[in-house]
Amino acid sequence: VILQNFKVDFAYPVYFTDSFFDREKNKEDIFAKCGIERGSKFLFVIDSNVVSANAQLTSLIEKYFELSQYEMAGEVVVIPGGESSKNNFDHVNKILTAIDQHKIDRHSYIVAIGGGAVLDAAGFAAAIAHRGIRHLRFPTTVLSQNDSGVGVKNGINYFGKKNFLGTFAPPFAVINDYSFLKTLSDRDFRCGISEAIKVGLIKDKTFFEFIESNAEKLNHRDEEVTRQLIFRCAEIHVQHNASGDPFEQGNSRPLDYGHWSAHKLEQLSGFNIRHGEAVAMGMCLDAVYANKKGLLSDHELMRVVLLMKKLQFKLFFPEMDLKSGIQNKLLSGLQEFREHLGGELTIMLIEKIGKGIEVHEVEEKLMLEAIVTMKKGTDN
Amino acid sequence: VILQNFKVDFAYPVYFTDSFFDREKNKEDIFAKCGIERGSKFLFVIDSNVVSANAQLTSLIEKYFELSQYEMAGEVVVIPGGESSKNNFDHVNKILTAIDQHKIDRHSYIVAIGGGAVLDAAGFAAAIAHRGIRHLRFPTTVLSQNDSGVGVKNGINYFGKKNFLGTFAPPFAVINDYSFLKTLSDRDFRCGISEAIKVGLIKDKTFFEFIESNAEKLNHRDEEVTRQLIFRCAEIHVQHNASGDPFEQGNSRPLDYGHWSAHKLEQLSGFNIRHGEAVAMGMCLDAVYANKKGLLSDHELMRVVLLMKKLQFKLFFPEMDLKSGIQNKLLSGLQEFREHLGGELTIMLIEKIGKGIEVHEVEEKLMLEAIVTMKKGTDN
Repeated sequence: VILQNFKVDFAYPVYFTDSFFDREKNKEDIFAKCGIERGSKFLFVIDSNVVSANAQLTSLIEKYFELSQYEMAGEVVVIPGGESSKNNFDHVNKILTAIDQHKIDRHSYIVAIGGGAVLDAAGFAAAIAHRGIRHLRFPTTVLSQNDSGVGVKNGINYFGKKNFLGTFAPPFAVINDYSFLKTLSDRDFRCGISEAIKVGLIKDKTFFEFIESNAEKLNHRDEEVTRQLIFRCAEIHVQHNASGDPFEQGNSRPLDYGHWSAHKLEQLSGFNIRHGEAVAMGMCLDAVYANKKGLLSDHELMRVVLLMKKLQFKLFFPEMDLKSGIQNKLLSGLQEFREHLGGELTIMLIEKIGKGIEVHEVEEKLMLEAIVTMKKGTDN
Repeated sequence: VILQNFKVDFAYPVYFTDSFFDREKNKEDIFAKCGIERGSKFLFVIDSNVVSANAQLTSLIEKYFELSQYEMAGEVVVIPGGESSKNNFDHVNKILTAIDQHKIDRHSYIVAIGGGAVLDAAGFAAAIAHRGIRHLRFPTTVLSQNDSGVGVKNGINYFGKKNFLGTFAPPFAVINDYSFLKTLSDRDFRCGISEAIKVGLIKDKTFFEFIESNAEKLNHRDEEVTRQLIFRCAEIHVQHNASGDPFEQGNSRPLDYGHWSAHKLEQLSGFNIRHGEAVAMGMCLDAVYANKKGLLSDHELMRVVLLMKKLQFKLFFPEMDLKSGIQNKLLSGLQEFREHLGGELTIMLIEKIGKGIEVHEVEEKLMLEAIVTMKKGTDN
């Protein structure tokens, strides 16, 4: 037997900036700070929603490149925003075709600008072309700036299953440009707060309390509070990946608190319910369940529920009532969640605010009761 | 700015065994030695050439699983042997469909049995499903047992380009079963020797001399010499990956000696010329070029050429004469080679037997002369 063993070092920066491509407002050369060499080629993939909301973006990018030491390869590739970008291999194929046509190689850059779904699809294309092309991400939503955009995963849906195809592929750099957030709808803005609440609930009580005391300001999209929220949430994600199991070789996914039911709810709604909305519901559902199991106190459960209500998250959806035979459809999300990761079921719950706990079993009867409680208005 | 930084540890064993699935001949439980848990699920992907040459294989595998503590998921997936397995996304899709249907998760195993091309296609499917399913490889050719099968790459051809899609994904384990080699044609057997000569030429003079002095035995497929050849060649590959840049983040691909023209020659022949045959030619061509550049002595060049001839490798093919406009088609392989890896052109040459040297420029005129020399019988 010969034993192979090696370590691979991954490193990337997450920058926080404003109006990146508008040279009149922003003179900072982040590309150079990232160590990108003169003459490097860039291919752009942009979310159609971002293009619609930022009419000047494409021309600003073109102007940026005219004045820069870099080369822009071909036209911007626009792919549909939202989950539909992940539901069709054709979008990935469109990116791959541009990579081929413009001879984008492993020392070139694919820049994706968009929400989490578009970043996932573009990241997947970048990861599989030539065994991985350098990839720069500009997340454009609160959710992607503080959560998925700073992480190492990509993926698309296949066979109707969420993230059935994907890889772990660290980006070359992440650039969180605040100006994109100004064009978000209130609904999309709010969606990004869920994942921040999540890391507070499982890891950082102080951060949870920061959100609690700033809920009203967040409802008014206060810029300073939002910037702090995103920075701290991104920071916790980065620290988590650095100290944990970034490529998920083990069983556990501690950051997936509230996600087993959220993924299923999104799917049951035909992706009309957004990820952040579904996660807010999923976290409450698992908090209600943890309370019924005797893990979480009544008082702390009420704090969780109240914060969600203050932030105007909906906590019950008709899809949660759907049944197939004798089985509530939401509950089949538990099995699908286990299958995606494989191995033993591992679900993160909270035993108090700021402290997660992993369990390997869920009492279905009690979970059904939790769903009923949610329906009654989460007032157990 | 937040800086993300983490290391990921990769480890896998390469076993050498015989008649693995034949419980009467082989009682060793390598799956258990690999640490595979009781009850784990296995999906098999097998090369059609291996199925044809080993009529009993499928029933032996089924019997193996009946008596084992593991579970075999569904029917064996058979995909066409040779490069055609990589030329069509449908084959990857067939594997993905089986993964979906049999609920193969990240703690299940995809076992691929076959030559390098089938391992590449199956490895790619395993790497992108659920962001990476554990993958066991049984390389069945000399070439895959001593070279590609023990490495970390997978890939398929796309847009007519070799390995346009692929990832770096270390296998869970590699099992080199000698019994498969007995069914190879002489042509396929010989093909595997090229990569061994290659590592000798660039890294290990003693190994080159071992091949030189055993050339006659290799022509007669002497088992003991073949086992030594495969073991040492696999060992050098493993050591190389452990000490180098296994995910090729830099510019250099030191193990690709002779490969820029080999890849192109395979493509120009519609993959009628095998990889090992093309590499034998490619190494000689680059040795002739190195000699013309004054890098490699006449004496050492003659040793290289004589060994190739002794092993009955063909050193000139009509495809090497093809022209498009004023450009010899083989030479366009240089540009494609650079593009795949990206960045500066980096070509490995040899300055003496056992010592490679990287160059970043190729004089096209001199390379054309080298092609002419090869045509004249490599007797400069």
